[in-house]
Parts: sequence; structure tokens; C-alpha cells
Amino acid sequence: MTDNTQVYTDLTVATMEVSDTAYGLIEDAAIVVSKGKVAWTGPKADLPQDYSAQTQISLGGRLVTPGLIDCHTHIVHGGDRAVEFEMRLNGASYEEVARAGGGIVSTVTATRAATEEALIASALPRVDAMLAEGTCVLEIKSGYGLDQDTELRMLRAARAIAQTRPVRVTTSFLGAHAVPAEFTGGADAYIDTVCIPALRAAHAEGLVDAVDGFCEGIAFQPEQIARVFDVARELGLPVKLHAEQLSNLGGAKLAASYGAMSADHIEYLDEDGVAAMAEAGTVAVVLPGAFYTLRETQMPPIAALRKHGVPMALATDCNPGSSPMTSLLLTMNMACTLFRMTPEEALAGVTRHAAAALRLDDCGRVATDLRADLAVWNVSHPAELAYRIGFNPLHSRIFGGQS
Amino acid sequence: MTDNTQVYTDLTVATMEVSDTAYGLIEDAAIVVSKGKVAWTGPKADLPQDYSAQTQISLGGRLVTPGLIDCHTHIVHGGDRAVEFEMRLNGASYEEVARAGGGIVSTVTATRAATEEALIASALPRVDAMLAEGTCVLEIKSGYGLDQDTELRMLRAARAIAQTRPVRVTTSFLGAHAVPAEFTGGADAYIDTVCIPALRAAHAEGLVDAVDGFCEGIAFQPEQIARVFDVARELGLPVKLHAEQLSNLGGAKLAASYGAMSADHIEYLDEDGVAAMAEAGTVAVVLPGAFYTLRETQMPPIAALRKHGVPMALATDCNPGSSPMTSLLLTMNMACTLFRMTPEEALAGVTRHAAAALRLDDCGRVATDLRADLAVWNVSHPAELAYRIGFNPLHSRIFGGQS
Ligand SMILES: [Zn+2]
Ligand SMILES: [Zn+2]
Repeated sequence: MTDNTQVYTDLTVATMEVSDTAYGLIEDAAIVVSKGKVAWTGPKADLPQDYSAQTQISLGGRLVTPGLIDCHTHIVHGGDRAVEFEMRLNGASYEEVARAGGGIVSTVTATRAATEEALIASALPRVDAMLAEGTCVLEIKSGYGLDQDTELRMLRAARAIAQTRPVRVTTSFLGAHAVPAEFTGGADAYIDTVCIPALRAAHAEGLVDAVDGFCEGIAFQPEQIARVFDVARELGLPVKLHAEQLSNLGGAKLAASYGAMSADHIEYLDEDGVAAMAEAGTVAVVLPGAFYTLRETQMPPIAALRKHGVPMALATDCNPGSSPMTSLLLTMNMACTLFRMTPEEALAGVTRHAAAALRLDDCGRVATDLRADLAVWNVSHPAELAYRIGFNPLHSRIFGGQS
Repeated sequence: MTDNTQVYTDLTVATMEVSDTAYGLIEDAAIVVSKGKVAWTGPKADLPQDYSAQTQISLGGRLVTPGLIDCHTHIVHGGDRAVEFEMRLNGASYEEVARAGGGIVSTVTATRAATEEALIASALPRVDAMLAEGTCVLEIKSGYGLDQDTELRMLRAARAIAQTRPVRVTTSFLGAHAVPAEFTGGADAYIDTVCIPALRAAHAEGLVDAVDGFCEGIAFQPEQIARVFDVARELGLPVKLHAEQLSNLGGAKLAASYGAMSADHIEYLDEDGVAAMAEAGTVAVVLPGAFYTLRETQMPPIAALRKHGVPMALATDCNPGSSPMTSLLLTMNMACTLFRMTPEEALAGVTRHAAAALRLDDCGRVATDLRADLAVWNVSHPAELAYRIGFNPLHSRIFGGQS
């Protein structure tokens, strides 16, 4: 027994292990943390002698869940789009907004103009809001540079965030996010002369954990995405895709054919695509914040995903345009309210299934030998986490065993 | 110049005064606070000599708005309805939920079982969440007792909250919220033998600032509400009404005929009712949290309210059933996203117009001689307050001059 072993008791734990019990719930449980990992969890009555002899830390009957995982964010970016939001609500036309420099162009301009330090500084309040809700893992994408220097700078900022705050960051290279203004009409040239060279450079610098793209009429066609994914495969990098958000281009099927980690958004996904994802082990990442903001009415195919056993993850999609949202708890509520997901599916979506979406096998559940990333909540039942709206009942967060 | 005069500078103020400038915005402004009130505000260049000679407190270029006002809450109540929320999403029928004691009945049961101390203790985390977003004034209703003892206990708890936290509380007696189980089919008897006597008793104890009711098929008919309002008039108490939420019973028109402070919800309000409200000076209180939770599709008549010049206030409707929400900022975003209100209308809705809904003339704007209830934000433009989702940029709150 080392000095730095903590024995937590007087708690209920939602282990999120697959079990006969909803949420993998264990009441009157104990959790033993040692060397940054969970050394043991189970009913307190079963606590091994070695641990039961130790001083116990009471959690006052609170609920413990795995630390939350936000598996899809664009949290690093320059500027915001509040003025554009206001212009639209004041009745400005699409053209007027565009003339005023609105849309993704404004974020690209602001991001290109920002230093790495400025990108970090503007992201940190958003990151801090996420940590305050118990988030322990955060995926961060590039994609607002659309030139090599800026794409790499965004990824360096993402890496730096993990050095600045107690949070684990995984990066996704999203050079294939939009065609920049200087390549209008030249998506192929952009892919070949900017996106792929930038991906190679970012990978050489160790900045890329996964490769992402946006497959949509307003972005890139499947064959363009495939060229990027071919390079990812060559580099040994896993892929994921923004797919079927506004229309069905078969993006999820394409992604599945590359063994993708996840296909994200997927409002317009058909059952064929669902089946392809199931076969490939591709996770569905559902993003209700963007659905809400865009006032989309096409729901993601929740029933088909359930039927085919495709794991559903949830994420904030934190971005300045279609989802200026930092709250995974609100995301859970939106998934229940808007998509009729259950509170258990919502919590799995930001823990076990979010870990699967990032191909992380050491987090997302409370289980022996996994990282001690834990969230302690002032609630008595896990359904409360999805039930409340805009309310944060976090008591404390434990990250890699450190509280 | 007294010692306790504070001169704030290096700020932008959204005074929310009606002016030629959106938000009544003054850039590079100063605010002088003395004896709990705003003694002066305007461009810093115009600061009177007496004040400009004083030590200045820099707000670092931040935005100052009036402290927020939540003019419609049921924040005092026993229990929660997370389990019911989960049952429904797991596919339970209305009957199964009812058999399990769900619906308003469960909240009435839990509220009746709670002591005043327990009601206060369970409300405080919700109140604290509101204060953390800059709320300075909070309306709190009774209405989950539906017997005299519990209605009065709820109102005492509401008054006690203002003693426990730096917040101003106004109370509304809502005995006419629902027909309790023991009076099923006997709404008239409930009004005459419980609701009205309880109102008189609560008023005698000084617990009532306004009288509210719920006019709806599932609650009370206009003629029953009118009997309660007649007593309110006799007691010299202003009235307000939950009206036209699920159907059009003419509740807003009835309320207007009593010179009501506000008619609330009003999704099914017609233009006739809007005109009656305009004539009576009745404020429209829009509650997007309930609209969102109930997945309502009938929008409140925003265009007609604008056309007739009816002020629109916004509130959380914080309650355990149809709006378990504590965030006025999220309410603002929902009003913009779901109802296409402008960010300026949204901010007026939680400041100037919310004050009007409560007939408070000493708050809701930043102006000379009004209370120094101020919110200081880490944003540069007021539109950011409605633009972000589930993110709280409050820097600090000043309540009656005290920070
Ligand atoms: Zn995205
Ligand atoms: Zn209400």
C-alpha cells in the first residue's frame, strides 16, 4: 500500500460498464485510486482487506461517474461570430452577412491573424468552462487555417492546452474543412497543394492523432475526402468524418470503408450507412448543439443506430458558427429532449462511447486499471445530469488520480 | 463626496435605456455608485469634476449591463423529476408515469413533506447558479402546496432566500396552479375553500407581492381565475397570469382586464389578446425553456407583440417539470434561436422589460438614481451574451452597490 493510494467511500458509482444494471450503477460503493489509475471498484462491502484498513475519504453519498469526454470540438479558433448572429436576427440577408465578412471566412481570417499564444488565450476560458463540468478529455480540431502555417499553429495550440490545464487533448487534422477563398472553385487543387502537404507536415511534427474531413456539398466531395484518407492510411493515422449533416453524400459509408473511428453529425444518414458503420465498428457522434442552432428538423437515425448496435457518442461541437457551446451537460439534455435519447445513452455518449469514438481504451468507464478520471456530482441519481438545463452540479473532478 | 462612492471606468455600459443607440450603449463610459445607487453614468469624458477627481476603479474594458432579473420562477419546490424524465424517455406511457406518482403530483407531495428549511436548502444551489450569472432580482412563486400551510411555507422560504443571499426576491401567490388530488373534479371548491383563504392568510402575513394563476384546460377556467383576481384587487395586490400556454382560453385578455403586470407563456395568444395587453400595459413574459422542454411548435406571437409595442420579458420558468433550468443566459440564447428575437430584445427581456413585468421602477436599467445592480462581463459586445450557449462570461456582480 503506497502513501498515494486513496480509498473513496460513501458514494454511488455509475461505472458505465456494460452490465445488467443501468449505468453499471453500484450503490454504497468504494473506489480505490493508486498511481493515477483505478486500482479497485465495487460494493464497499467487498473492499479487499488491504484497502479497507486504509483511511477512507468520504464522498458524502455523492454520485461518481467517469470523467466526461468531449470527442468533437473546434475549441481553438480566432474571433467569434456574435455580430453575425445579431445581424441575422436583425434580418440581414445571407448576402449582407457575407459582404460583412461573415460565415466561416470570418473565423478563418481571425484565426490566420492570431498568434499561437492568442489562440491558446482565447480557447482557455472555453476549456475552463468544460473542466468545470467534469470534462477530462477533449478532442480539438484544426480547420480554420486552411493554409499550412495556420493549420499547424492551431494544432500546436491544441497540444499546448494540455500543458496548461489538467486535461488530456487529442488532435484531429481537419484541413479538409472548407475551401478557402483563395481556392474558390478549386477544391481539388486545395486538397492536393495545401491540405495533403499540411497533413504530412503536421504529422511529421507529431501534431496529429487523427484525420478528419467535412464531406458535404458546401465542402468536399467523397472522392476528395478519400484522397486525404489515403494519405492518413499511408501515415498510419485513424480517420473520422463530418458526414451527412445537411445531405446524404454517402460520407459515413466512405468513412466506414476506411475503418473510421467515427462519423459525426449524420442527420441525413440512411440505414445502409448505419449498417456500414456497424460492420466497421465506426461510432456515431451526435451533435445536438449544431442541430439546435441551425434549427435542423431532420433527426439523426437514432432508432436505426440502436437496431444495428452502433455506439452513439455525444459532443459539444464547440465552434463559433453552428454551435458556440461549451457544455457537455447541456449537450446531454439536448440529446434527450431533441433526439429522445435516454439519460443512460446520454451519459454513455460522453463517457464510454466518446472514448470509443476517440479509440481510447483507458478511460470512459470506472474500472480497474483504467485512468482515474472521475467526476463527482452533487446529485443522487445519474438521470439528473441530463434532466437539468443549464445547471452544473459538479462537486469535484479527479484527473489521473489528482483532485 | 462620501468615502463609499465608487467611480468605475474603462468600461462599456449597456444602459438598456431607450435611446438612438442599440442597448443604450455608451463606450468608454463611467459609472458612479453611491449609497447603493447609480449616482451618475455617461461617457467618461463627461464625468463631473467631483467624480473625476476620485480614485477610479478600472473594469479593464469590460461590458457592464444592468443586473439580470428573472421575473418568473418556481425555484422553491420539493424533490425533482429526473426519474420521471428518464421513465418517459425509456418509453413509459402517461399512465405508467402517473401510476408511479409522476407529474405535478410528485412535486406537490415532495413540497408538502418538506420543512421550510428543506425548501430553502434545496433552492439555494439553484439560486446560487442564478447569482453566478449576474441575476440580482428573482421572482418566486408558491403553487406546489395547494394547501394553506404549504403555500405559506413556500412563500416564507422565498422571503428567507433574500435574507440568506444577496438577491432581491419578489413573491407571487400561485394557489391557483393546479387542482390538488383531494379536490379532483372540484376546482371551484378548491378555489373557494383553499386558494382564496390561503391568499388572504398569506397577504395578512406580508408574504404576497403579486397574485398569479394558471388559466388552462388542465388547470383553471377564466371565471375561476377571476374570482381569485377579485380578491387580489380587494387586497390591493397586482396580478399576473400563466396564459395561453397550451390553448387559447382568453387568459391574457382576462388578465389585461385586471390591469395585470404580465401574461406569461402565451404561445397560443391571438392578436386580440395582444391588443388587450398593449392597452392595459401588460408585459408579455416569454418562457423558451418550457417551449423547448415540451417540444412545443406553436411560437409566441413575437411579430404581433412587436407591432403592438408590448414589452417582451424573458424568464427561466425554473421548475422541476417543464423547465428544470436555472440559466437566464441560456434563456436569452433560446429566445433568439427558437423565437428569432434579437440579442437586444433578449437582453431587454431580462433587464428593462423584466423590471416592468414585476412593476419595479428602480432597476433593470443603468441610470441615475436607480439601484446599483450591475453585471460585469468578460465580453466586448452585448450580443455575445445571447450568442453563446451554456457558457457564462460573468466577471462580477454588483448588488445594491456591493460587489
Ligand atoms: Zn465539427
Ligand atoms: Zn410558471
